[in-house]
Amino acid sequence: MELGTHPTFRDSADGTVLTSARAGDPIDRATDAARRVVDALLRTDRTNANLERVTEELDGIAEHLEEHAPAVAERLIDMWSGEGVTRHDPVTGPENAIAPPLVLEGRGDGTVCGTVTLTMAYQGPPGHVHGGVSALLLDHVLGVANAWYGRSGMTAQLSTRYHRPTPLFEPLTISGRVASVDGRKIHAEGDIRTADGQVCVSVEGLFIDKTVPRPR
Amino acid sequence: MELGTHPTFRDSADGTVLTSARAGDPIDRATDAARRVVDALLRTDRTNANLERVTEELDGIAEHLEEHAPAVAERLIDMWSGEGVTRHDPVTGPENAIAPPLVLEGRGDGTVCGTVTLTMAYQGPPGHVHGGVSALLLDHVLGVANAWYGRSGMTAQLSTRYHRPTPLFEPLTISGRVASVDGRKIHAEGDIRTADGQVCVSVEGLFIDKTVPRPR
Repeated sequence: MELGTHPTFRDSADGTVLTSARAGDPIDRATDAARRVVDALLRTDRTNANLERVTEELDGIAEHLEEHAPAVAERLIDMWSGEGVTRHDPVTGPENAIAPPLVLEGRGDGTVCGTVTLTMAYQGPPGHVHGGVSALLLDHVLGVANAWYGRSGMTAQLSTRYHRPTPLFEPLTISGRVASVDGRKIHAEGDIRTADGQVCVSVEGLFIDKTVPRPR
Repeated sequence: MELGTHPTFRDSADGTVLTSARAGDPIDRATDAARRVVDALLRTDRTNANLERVTEELDGIAEHLEEHAPAVAERLIDMWSGEGVTRHDPVTGPENAIAPPLVLEGRGDGTVCGTVTLTMAYQGPPGHVHGGVSALLLDHVLGVANAWYGRSGMTAQLSTRYHRPTPLFEPLTISGRVASVDGRKIHAEGDIRTADGQVCVSVEGLFIDKTVPRPR
């Protein structure tokens, strides 16, 4: 993310949405529909759904989309141009069907947070969120918290603690904040809680202020 | 995973595949096609690809699959019955379009490893793997390494270190092993390397031998 153009808690209102809104654009609606297919494939009956026909139809759609896809190198340039917030990341990206997607708001106290209900595709232990998915979400939230604080860094170290199993199918609150800054080292922390405030997973992250250049 | 039924490095051959093979079943083929759609949606041209029609078709497929889906509670019982290795997790599950999917083999020395090439959907920094995705993959690999060692535990703590950006579109080798066991505490470690052996991400995990009951 480019500094200077990105909102921070010092210059922006409490409640500023820091992730790309699902805009109702055709690509966002198509991605929502793809998310629905991913979930339904995990839930559907293995013998009574016509999976041969589904395969054919999905392959047909993919072929159509691929026919209209530019070369990957060209697409990479395009997807990193424009707005400071990405639309394609695997946590908050409205254009990425892997993303739940998580919507994050910045708070006046420097915290960022969002609420998300995770479903079948994110399952680890029976009925619960995969521990690695919790780490994925928290890493991303800490990155957004850095930007809201006015810094930007690459993850150097991420320490995740699991306090209790994190439930699927229930609203979870995910939050993060910068705890301290020491030169180029940014220390951030965050957690995932159930609706009644129980901490399921907590995280501490060390980020180094070092930007990976955008493709061009 | 149920102990006793799961292969370990003491009783099974070097090279034993520890993840569910893509069986060519209709559900696996349909999920492969869904993966292709997820990727193509990220790559396709935003203006020329007739995304309205794509949305309609994807929604139609989802509707068909949902019509044949049992209640979630019932499906949860079903998906956890049978074989000891899950087919639906977000890292190795052939039935989960979010999973790359990673295929893991057990080695005679107790290590588990696999090779995977990650694409657009797993992007964090431009052209590189999202740090949280690396944590997700490594958490899962350590879980499989525990089972190959003959133990099974819930993640208690996961410490991930990022040594250099992890490239997309290149084969990555992911491996894990149990480092030591102290009563119910299982210490495991692993890493992600490029084809020429450079370590991009390393991980240490503490797992506690505590099984979450399967739904029934």
